[in-house]
Amino acid sequence: MPSSLRVGLLGCGNVGGALVRLLVEEGGRITARTGLELTLAAVAVRSQSREREVPIPAGILTTDAASVVADPDVDVVVEVIGGIEPARSLTLTALKSGKPVISANKELLANCGAELFEAAAASGVDLLFEAAVAGGIPLIRPLRESLAGESIRRVMGIVNGTTNFILTRMAEEGATYHDALAEAQSLGYAERDPTADVEGYDAAAKAAILANVAFGARVVAGDVYREGIAGITEADIAMAARLGYAVKLLAVVERSDPADQENPGDFGLDGSGVEAVAVRVHPAMVPATHPLASVRDSFNAVFVEGRAVGDLMFLGRGAGGMPTASAVLGDLLDAAHNLTTGGAGRTVALRRTAITSIDELRSAYYIALEVEDRPGVLHAVSGVLGQHRVSIRLMEQETHGDPGRARLVFVTHPALERDVQACLGELRHLDVVHALSGFLRVIGS
Amino acid sequence: MPSSLRVGLLGCGNVGGALVRLLVEEGGRITARTGLELTLAAVAVRSQSREREVPIPAGILTTDAASVVADPDVDVVVEVIGGIEPARSLTLTALKSGKPVISANKELLANCGAELFEAAAASGVDLLFEAAVAGGIPLIRPLRESLAGESIRRVMGIVNGTTNFILTRMAEEGATYHDALAEAQSLGYAERDPTADVEGYDAAAKAAILANVAFGARVVAGDVYREGIAGITEADIAMAARLGYAVKLLAVVERSDPADQENPGDFGLDGSGVEAVAVRVHPAMVPATHPLASVRDSFNAVFVEGRAVGDLMFLGRGAGGMPTASAVLGDLLDAAHNLTTGGAGRTVALRRTAITSIDELRSAYYIALEVEDRPGVLHAVSGVLGQHRVSIRLMEQETHGDPGRARLVFVTHPALERDVQACLGELRHLDVVHALSGFLRVIGS
Repeated sequence: MPSSLRVGLLGCGNVGGALVRLLVEEGGRITARTGLELTLAAVAVRSQSREREVPIPAGILTTDAASVVADPDVDVVVEVIGGIEPARSLTLTALKSGKPVISANKELLANCGAELFEAAAASGVDLLFEAAVAGGIPLIRPLRESLAGESIRRVMGIVNGTTNFILTRMAEEGATYHDALAEAQSLGYAERDPTADVEGYDAAAKAAILANVAFGARVVAGDVYREGIAGITEADIAMAARLGYAVKLLAVVERSDPADQENPGDFGLDGSGVEAVAVRVHPAMVPATHPLASVRDSFNAVFVEGRAVGDLMFLGRGAGGMPTASAVLGDLLDAAHNLTTGGAGRTVALRRTAITSIDELRSAYYIALEVEDRPGVLHAVSGVLGQHRVSIRLMEQETHGDPGRARLVFVTHPALERDVQACLGELRHLDVVHALSGFLRVIGS
Repeated sequence: MPSSLRVGLLGCGNVGGALVRLLVEEGGRITARTGLELTLAAVAVRSQSREREVPIPAGILTTDAASVVADPDVDVVVEVIGGIEPARSLTLTALKSGKPVISANKELLANCGAELFEAAAASGVDLLFEAAVAGGIPLIRPLRESLAGESIRRVMGIVNGTTNFILTRMAEEGATYHDALAEAQSLGYAERDPTADVEGYDAAAKAAILANVAFGARVVAGDVYREGIAGITEADIAMAARLGYAVKLLAVVERSDPADQENPGDFGLDGSGVEAVAVRVHPAMVPATHPLASVRDSFNAVFVEGRAVGDLMFLGRGAGGMPTASAVLGDLLDAAHNLTTGGAGRTVALRRTAITSIDELRSAYYIALEVEDRPGVLHAVSGVLGQHRVSIRLMEQETHGDPGRARLVFVTHPALERDVQACLGELRHLDVVHALSGFLRVIGS
């Protein structure tokens, strides 16, 4: 006899519709494989009259989402509405009434995670959100469960498919940023207003969630240092390629405890939790031999560095109705398993954690300057770098379409961000420097 | 109050020793993070007198493994002895007495999986084996849990680090197979007798386990079609690179139901299980743009193609004491969580499944022949291919160091393996053909 679970679905757009389709088409196989029978009990939608691609049984559609959560016929709630309210209130109500919630809502988790995790823990029910970061890629469950005993040092992810598509087109076709963005929009990868993707807001929300899960750090989206890709030029990408790098928009979450800084191999073996984390989103130069460098098109990938396990990478489709619904379905089966066997879910316990300023970052840097093409320029520029303790690993000067102008490109040895920013401030004011045309952090190999 | 679990460890070599170290060094942090306290209660070793790198408390070392399993002070058993007996009997005894078992033993699982899974299911306890395939990479748990609702079409893995190291050296340094093998041996990546790795036996065991987990198919190591890498030449790898491919030793497990063959997009939506699988290990040409192509050195990676989720890849260290111990520790925490919360583990239910012969494979092929360098040779060779319905996608003829000889390279359109093998049989007997010098299956992009 299969165990039967009744699902209440909040939202039936792209992801919700794909989930309904999976429940219908894969239901028999899922029951055969897992002994679990998932039945759609109620579906909350904005408009009942809209045409839907998937068949939803008559009588279970409603515009009253609260009634779905309260419905005694609903055992588990799936929230794919997106946005903070009413998703937050509905999720809290469900959790407080002892119903597990599956959420694909990165905005909600990245802003209200602590409150939601506490509500789930207080009721002893699951709050699962595999779909909120990197879509269909199994990532949250491996981090929470498989790596529960692992001391994680850093998590770096390509977690926004739109920007990765744009950067791939720029690298492989030599497209300009604007042409690549237009192509992404015409293919439906980018919104008409692409701000959330290209300015890194989407990636920053996911970075906050990764900080929650990987480090138990109480980080919200607004805590994340953020730079987008709109300033990246074809020249930067071509130069990066020539130097053996790919340019990727990365979400980076890393331990930054003072002890770890001094002794990075140590991982803080005193048994305490992580005391400080750095969380940032920015474009970066990734060595061509690094696994993240070969993640193309709209794929997502998350690279995890652990003390015992070493380097791991998880790659797949970070968006799309079906991949995201697949992640929701996996969570749904997990929650159903726990409900029917009386098992407890795993909670995410967040601690207050210092968030290290970007000023404290130690990194190598790529800096491109548009300069006067005359003797003494390199001397002036390198003098500014030297004064700020920024040492140069390599320098190239390219002549230019513009007569009298040149492009000066530096890659530095690891330096402190604060010092590099002070350099840039001074360089901008040098007579011989017309513009700072490129600036990228460089990931070590 | 943390929940306390007492661990019985069978075997204390490379992986067992690393696990002891992790339990000592990470214990405090693990308890803080998970509320679980893992205590080493008993350790079975072959010799008590051996020097150990890790400190094991006095009085818990024994040479009597059965006593560890029977010890009422042991709640959960970790089996890292390897080999079939006594590991099989000890594992069965533990499971039958209601103790969860964590195993890193691919040989045991690939040969006795069905019996062990049944024993675990009968007792309602966990049998977890994340470490048995692809070492530290979280793969088995994502397949069993995250993708429990997914219809998987194919799993392709680079699951042997030794051979991937050798193939990487051959591709990147132009090394010969023998030089690359010698380097792998000197670095400790390959055994003095490298047969298990280079002939694909290790990968075949892992392929069988992947067939168990991904498809619930009752497959054992001996069912797996197997070819190794000893016949791969620098010329094959250089030609593959020139054509836009990397050569990788792949373990491939795929659905081969007749319905799927006719309609590959369908995934058999009748709700029944998988009726037939193909399971094989062989070197293959992988398109350079495929994520598996950029998996270098001794890294492992497993590529999963699902109906809803699309393409996924999991990458990491497939071997080594610490990465493997990390996977064991993740399983241990999972089993401990289930034991202390009363939750039930997930079982692997195996069904008898037809195993499709390699003869039925449809693939593109790379074929290299050493031939006479004279007119009419291509005509003769292409005639044989045509007779067997093998159509040619591209052909290249290279002249040779040997005067009077040439190297003829074909890449075919997808063809039936049976037809291609019939071709090869005939080609070997043509007067103008001196040798079949290269043969690789080609993975579609």
